[in-house]
Parts: sequence; C-alpha cells; structure tokens
Amino acid sequence: MRLNRKDILGIEDLSVEELETILSTAESFKEVSTREIKKVPTLRGKTIINLFYEASTRTRTSFEIAAKRMSADAVNISVSTSSVVKGETLKDTAKNLEAMKPDCIVIRHSSSGAPHGIAGYVGCSVINAGDGNHEHPSQALLDMLTVREHKKSLAGLKLAIIGDVKHSRVARSNIYGFTKLGASVVVCGPATMLPPGIEALGCKATVNVEDALRDADVVMMLRIQLERSKGADFPNAREYSRLYGLDDVKLRKAKKDVLILHPGPMNRGVEISAEVADGPYSLILDQVTNGVAVRMALFYLLLGTSREDAPKAI
Amino acid sequence: MRLNRKDILGIEDLSVEELETILSTAESFKEVSTREIKKVPTLRGKTIINLFYEASTRTRTSFEIAAKRMSADAVNISVSTSSVVKGETLKDTAKNLEAMKPDCIVIRHSSSGAPHGIAGYVGCSVINAGDGNHEHPSQALLDMLTVREHKKSLAGLKLAIIGDVKHSRVARSNIYGFTKLGASVVVCGPATMLPPGIEALGCKATVNVEDALRDADVVMMLRIQLERSKGADFPNAREYSRLYGLDDVKLRKAKKDVLILHPGPMNRGVEISAEVADGPYSLILDQVTNGVAVRMALFYLLLGTSREDAPKAI
Amino acid sequence: MRLNRKDILGIEDLSVEELETILSTAESFKEVSTREIKKVPTLRGKTIINLFYEASTRTRTSFEIAAKRMSADAVNISVSTSSVVKGETLKDTAKNLEAMKPDCIVIRHSSSGAPHGIAGYVGCSVINAGDGNHEHPSQALLDMLTVREHKKSLAGLKLAIIGDVKHSRVARSNIYGFTKLGASVVVCGPATMLPPGIEALGCKATVNVEDALRDADVVMMLRIQLERSKGADFPNAREYSRLYGLDDVKLRKAKKDVLILHPGPMNRGVEISAEVADGPYSLILDQVTNGVAVRMALFYLLLGTSREDAPKAI
Repeated sequence: MRLNRKDILGIEDLSVEELETILSTAESFKEVSTREIKKVPTLRGKTIINLFYEASTRTRTSFEIAAKRMSADAVNISVSTSSVVKGETLKDTAKNLEAMKPDCIVIRHSSSGAPHGIAGYVGCSVINAGDGNHEHPSQALLDMLTVREHKKSLAGLKLAIIGDVKHSRVARSNIYGFTKLGASVVVCGPATMLPPGIEALGCKATVNVEDALRDADVVMMLRIQLERSKGADFPNAREYSRLYGLDDVKLRKAKKDVLILHPGPMNRGVEISAEVADGPYSLILDQVTNGVAVRMALFYLLLGTSREDAPKAI
Repeated sequence: MRLNRKDILGIEDLSVEELETILSTAESFKEVSTREIKKVPTLRGKTIINLFYEASTRTRTSFEIAAKRMSADAVNISVSTSSVVKGETLKDTAKNLEAMKPDCIVIRHSSSGAPHGIAGYVGCSVINAGDGNHEHPSQALLDMLTVREHKKSLAGLKLAIIGDVKHSRVARSNIYGFTKLGASVVVCGPATMLPPGIEALGCKATVNVEDALRDADVVMMLRIQLERSKGADFPNAREYSRLYGLDDVKLRKAKKDVLILHPGPMNRGVEISAEVADGPYSLILDQVTNGVAVRMALFYLLLGTSREDAPKAI
Repeated sequence: MRLNRKDILGIEDLSVEELETILSTAESFKEVSTREIKKVPTLRGKTIINLFYEASTRTRTSFEIAAKRMSADAVNISVSTSSVVKGETLKDTAKNLEAMKPDCIVIRHSSSGAPHGIAGYVGCSVINAGDGNHEHPSQALLDMLTVREHKKSLAGLKLAIIGDVKHSRVARSNIYGFTKLGASVVVCGPATMLPPGIEALGCKATVNVEDALRDADVVMMLRIQLERSKGADFPNAREYSRLYGLDDVKLRKAKKDVLILHPGPMNRGVEISAEVADGPYSLILDQVTNGVAVRMALFYLLLGTSREDAPKAI
C-alpha cells in the first residue's frame, strides 16, 4: 500500500481515508519495535535527511530511529552546524539537498510554510516535522493513534486542548485531525493565548477551563513557554498553573475514563501536575512509543514500493 | 581498481592518469544514486570518520551519503562538540582517532596543510575536504566531472574563475585540475582578490571581467564572503555585483554553449544573478549530484579491494 | 555469555568475576577491528542511544564505532542540540527515550549519579560514560585490559595515579578496578587535589611524587584542567609541571618495565612530557584501541543473547 501523495505537510491536507490508512499502517508497524531484532529491510537503500532548523530531542530522535528500523540511511543536518548560517536561501538549500538524491526530507523550521516551500522545490518526499505555529502532522497522528488504541474510534469523543493554543502547531494539527475523524474539539486558555477566529478550524474556544474539561474524553495539555511569561501572554507560572494547570481537582470535571495527553517536554507543576502526568489516565509515554510507529508508517507509505501492503512488507 | 596512494590531499599531487581514473570511476558510480535501492555492499565493515573543524552542510552531507551508499559506517565529529576545544594537538587527535581503526578520515580544517599533517601521522587514508585557502580536491573533481559530461574532454577549453580567488581553495584546486587536463584557466577579480604570483600555478590573471569571459567555455563563479566586505577587499556587495557579478549581459562575452559552475552556497544577486544561476547554462545542481559520485569513487579507490574493478564491484 | 545485570554504572558495583568476564570478552572482540571487514552481525536490530550532556570526542566516537561494528543502530544526542535546554527533568528525558524502545542508553553527565538515576527509571540497559567526579567505568576497563595485555595479571602490581585525583572519575574507577584485581594503588598530587578520605577506597595517598613512582609497575597520569588554575588548586602550569609532571627524570624512580597510561586528551608539557608520552613505555594509544573492544564487549554482554558465548558469536 502506498499513499497517493508525495508529501506529508499538514493534517489539513489529508482525507479521512488517508488518516485511516496511516493509523492502521502505524498499528501494524508498532510490533516491530517490540521484537528482539527491531529492524525490517523494507527501506534499505533509501536516504532520509532530517533537516532541523530548531533544536529537538524527541522528534529528531524519533524520526531517526524510525528510519533506521526501516533500514533506511538517515542523515542529520542541524542548523547550528549548517551552511544556512551563510545566508543561502531555503530554496537553494532544498535544491542542493535534492541533488544528492534523497528519498525524503524531514524538515522542522521556525517559519510556518517552510516545508510547503521545500516540497514545491523538490521531487522527493517532504515530511513536515513542525513549522512555526502552523502544523506538526506526525505529532497529531501519534496522538490520534494513541487515543484510538484506547477508544477504538474517535467519532463522538470530546477532546479538550488546554494551554497556549495561539503558538501551538500541535493544537492546530490535532484540531484538524480529531474533527476529521468525528471528534468534537474545544480549545481553552487565557484570552491572550486563544487566536481570534480559531473556531473557523471547526472547534469551540473558551477561557473557562471547567467548561473545556466537562465530560471530556481526552485532555491534551500544551507546553507553556515559560520564556514568554515576560510578555503579556500570562502573568507568571504560578498564576497560570492555578488557573489552567491540570491537577486532580480540575480533572474531576472530565469523564471517569478520561485520557491525558501532552506532547512534551512537560513543565511539571506548571501546565500539568506530577500526579496527573504520572497518573493512571496519562498516556504521555504511549504517545512517544507511537511516535516511532507513526513515522515508520509515514516513511513506508511515502517511500515503499506499491507492490506490497504493510503487514506483509514487515 | 585502486589508486596507488593512501591519501587525497590536493589536486596538485595527482597525475593525469589518476585524475582520469577517479573521473571514470565516479561516472560509473553515478548510476547507483539513481537506483531504487541506492546502496552497494562494496565498503561494508569499513569505518569512515568525517572530522569537520568548520561548519558545512553540503560537503559533510555529501561525504556521509557517499559513505552510506557504499555501505560503510560513517561517524561524524564536528568541532563544536569535540574535545579539540580542550587544547589537544592535531597530531594527538589524529593518532587517537587512528587507534580506533578507521579506514579513512575525511577532514576539513581552517588551516592550510592540516590534512597533510594528519596524513603523515596516521596509517589510514585521509581525504582533504577543504583546508584553509589551500585545496578542496573533491570539489575540483566534481567540477571536472561535470564539465566532462558536457564537453567530453577538458583539453582546449577555456575556464574563467571569477571572484575572491585569493581566499578560494576551490579556485586553487581547479586551476591545478583543469590545466592538468589540458584546459586554459584565467582567474579574475578585483586586484585585492588576486593573490600575487597566482600565474605560477599555470593560469592567467586579470582584473578585467570581459577579458576573462571572452570566449570562455566554462565560467566558475566564486562565493563572495560578505562578512569580509568591511575590510579592504571590496567596497560593498552592490559595487562588487556591478563590476564582477555574472549576469546575462556579461555572459554574452562567453561562448554560446558556455557552462556555468558555482561551488555554493550562492549569494544570489551578488556574485551571480538569479537568471544565470537558474538559466539554461547553469550546471550548479549537477555539480552537487556529481559530488556524491566523486566521493563514492574516492572511497572506492582508496579503500576498496584491488581484486575488482569499479563497474563490476558495483 | 551474558552479564547477570542490566547496567554498567561503576566499577565499584562489579565483582571480580564480572571484571574478568568483561576483560576476556573484550580481548576476543579486539580482533574484529583488525579485520578487512570490521563488522559482526551480533547486535543487528538493536538501538543504542548515546546521550551526552558533556562534549566528548573520543568517548562518544568510541561508543559509536563499537555499536556500529556490532551492527547496532547508534543514535547520538548531544546536549547542545537537545530539548534538555527546555528544562525537562532527567527522569522525563529518560522515560521518553525509553518509550522509543532502545536497548541501551549510554550517558555522560556532569552530575555524579545521573546515570544511576536514569538506570532506575528505565528498563533498558544503561552504561555510564562518565558522571561528574564519580566514575567512568569503561575507561577503567580499557585501562585494565591494556595493563593485562602486558602483565598477564594485575595481582601484585603497583599502580601510581598522579594528578587532580579530586576531580577525576577516571582515578576513582581505576582505584576500584585495580584493587579488586589485586593491584596496590597509590594516588598522588598536591594536597589541594587529593580528596580527604580517599584512602577509604582502598588506596594510599601521598603528595610526594617520588614515593608514588618508586617501584611502580604502572603510572597513570591524569589530565590537568588548566582552566582551574585560576582557582586555588595549583599555582600555574609551569609550577605544576615541575612538581608533578611526568618526565624521564622522575620516571627513573619507577620499575624498568613501567607502563605509562593517560586517559587523554593530554596537555603535553604540563602533566606529561612529550618524551614520556611518545616513549617506549607509553600505552596511551593502546588504551584507545582497547576502548573500542571494551565497549563492544559491554554491548555484547548486556544486549547479546545468552545462547552463544562471545568467541562463537563473533
């Protein structure tokens, strides 16, 4: 099986069928990472470039491990050691990398739309690993996979996304994804963190955390950028935590079998209490495990041959 | 086939026969990067260390991809994360790396001659990936390969190299290479960028860009280091561009079927106009593609067994 | 064969039998790095993460090469490009990495005990690649292997460790290791560099370098951190060198067939003279070669299957 597209740039672009295909393929690849020999030969001889213009442990490592478990060659380029400091345009960087005949470029960039630009310049596949405040599709896919494992279907679920929605590409991708699969999404945060018009994406918005949490099936807490607290977005970490931080008390508003997600890295005691992060409803580490499976699936569906379907190819 | 030498330190050292062998081998390896499975087992179990004391996207990535497509293990060491900050001598670093039994050390260093020093200290192969203002042999080889693909032979061609010749290891390696293969070379730039005595390398030198371009078969534009413009080398980017930047008007002096090269990264609008860079005569991306093939060939000719010749080994 | 433990955190924890097993296994793996094809398939499909919170050339490179020669997938994470700058706790970083299903995490950290913390959080193997002033077990193992190659047994030997003992994890691990295997250890340095109570580890301590060197079978020089000379630890490099630097004159106090070790990187002319470093008694480069073998052995003994013993598995 193979997706009928070259790139994964955002959840907004993906059809329900494509989402289902990716999630099902990821489920089948998840087993590979539990084997004694965690490696399949599927993408041997493929070259995957991880082009990261922003620092990242978990995302870059997850893509790199996914590539290697598929037997692809992974090459990392990080901005701090790269010639982009020399002022080359993004287009020239893209065309130059393409000339080395990679099969896929995974890109993280601080500018929204940078991966789309690159995808238009190159013939190889491009995966958006996070662009500005725009999208982070592989994160949303792993979030959907994690919920689907526990709820079978996303249809009819209520997802509450709480925190700095305005600066969150994770929120944006998840709004697209969960609503496409039939869930209802409410975003919540201080007014300064709710972008005007966010409802146009298909979600509700509220500053009232109790409203957001009420009867929620899934709660996704967003990371607070503490370094932004000097601006006007929020008064300070303690005040933010008191109003919007998820703790056992606030959580009582949600459903009994609520699921807790967080994209990481967490600020424990700020947006999420340690009790909740480590509690029985938390799927935060499942998300990370599923991240590798989702990325293996994306590589497979973009780069694999069309002759075989996923389970056999494994 | 195998070169009868341990190291590739500069084009100055290579015989015409060696140049021809490298270029022919590179041609045969070029096909590997166009395959569905871009990998040959030739150098399995070989260890290649990329030791970069200067930042680089394209050169380090090109060597790394070349190593991996040959199935060698590639290990990257960049100065920013290395213990060289602790003041160890280059010799001790070299001897220590050698003690880990690599088959090849690829080194880029800001000091001219550093790779030669290392090559004298270690028993394994050393490839100079750029040393100070001295040489960058794999760049010149990919330039020669690119021209040869279009002109069959370099003999009798006129190559114009335009820009900051004084600080360019690319210029120096290409002067050696193109003259050895029978081309005539003229270097051109403001007087401040033409090193005294450059003609001793076998080229002509001129400050007159029209003279340089007249009837040129190949024009190689050099990158201007804008950060140097505060010194005395050139007044400013606009003035430089007006006098020495390659645009469609200046290009009319060259032959009708002129080929345009640039080692990258380009300053569009400074040393080269976008029209020329993206125009029909530009081979700038072919250079990058050929870079991988040339580096595969160098690894093969230095590290491969002598029992097989290149095409069969592939 | 396989060690009956999950982690290698320090020499202090290891029994004599375990030390002997590791050293014997390392001896058998040493031959792999001398082959034409320096690679065994033993750990194919295993994922090894090198998590370095401190810069390092030789140790990280040695672990990476060891992993690759065992056919494991190696993933490097260095602090400068990692999200630990975002303030995530070490525990969360560990749990997140574990969720990606690595088989081993190799960690270097400036805080003593950090690897022990991580080992307690994760189910996979953890190898301490140096923690604060505490331990550096793979370094001590390669030191023991190097001496054993020349002296057959460590029992009855006198080891002198000279330098900044107080800040040296190398010294601490070697005191544990050499005394366990029957050697006597004396540490020596200015009083400011000898931690009070060091004798409790089973060694003697002296400020008199002649006493330390007298009849020594092995002399291990420690690196002086020149950047500490502004503090009170020692007056200046020249004075330190005169009093404690190892040169041919001081070396006459030791046995005729003395062996010289240094963990690197060396400050030539400070703690060790060039004559001694490059002289006939120096095993400094043997140490580096043995480092790869020791790390291959550790990976094998922690991650390999229990069905085969080392020599056959190779």
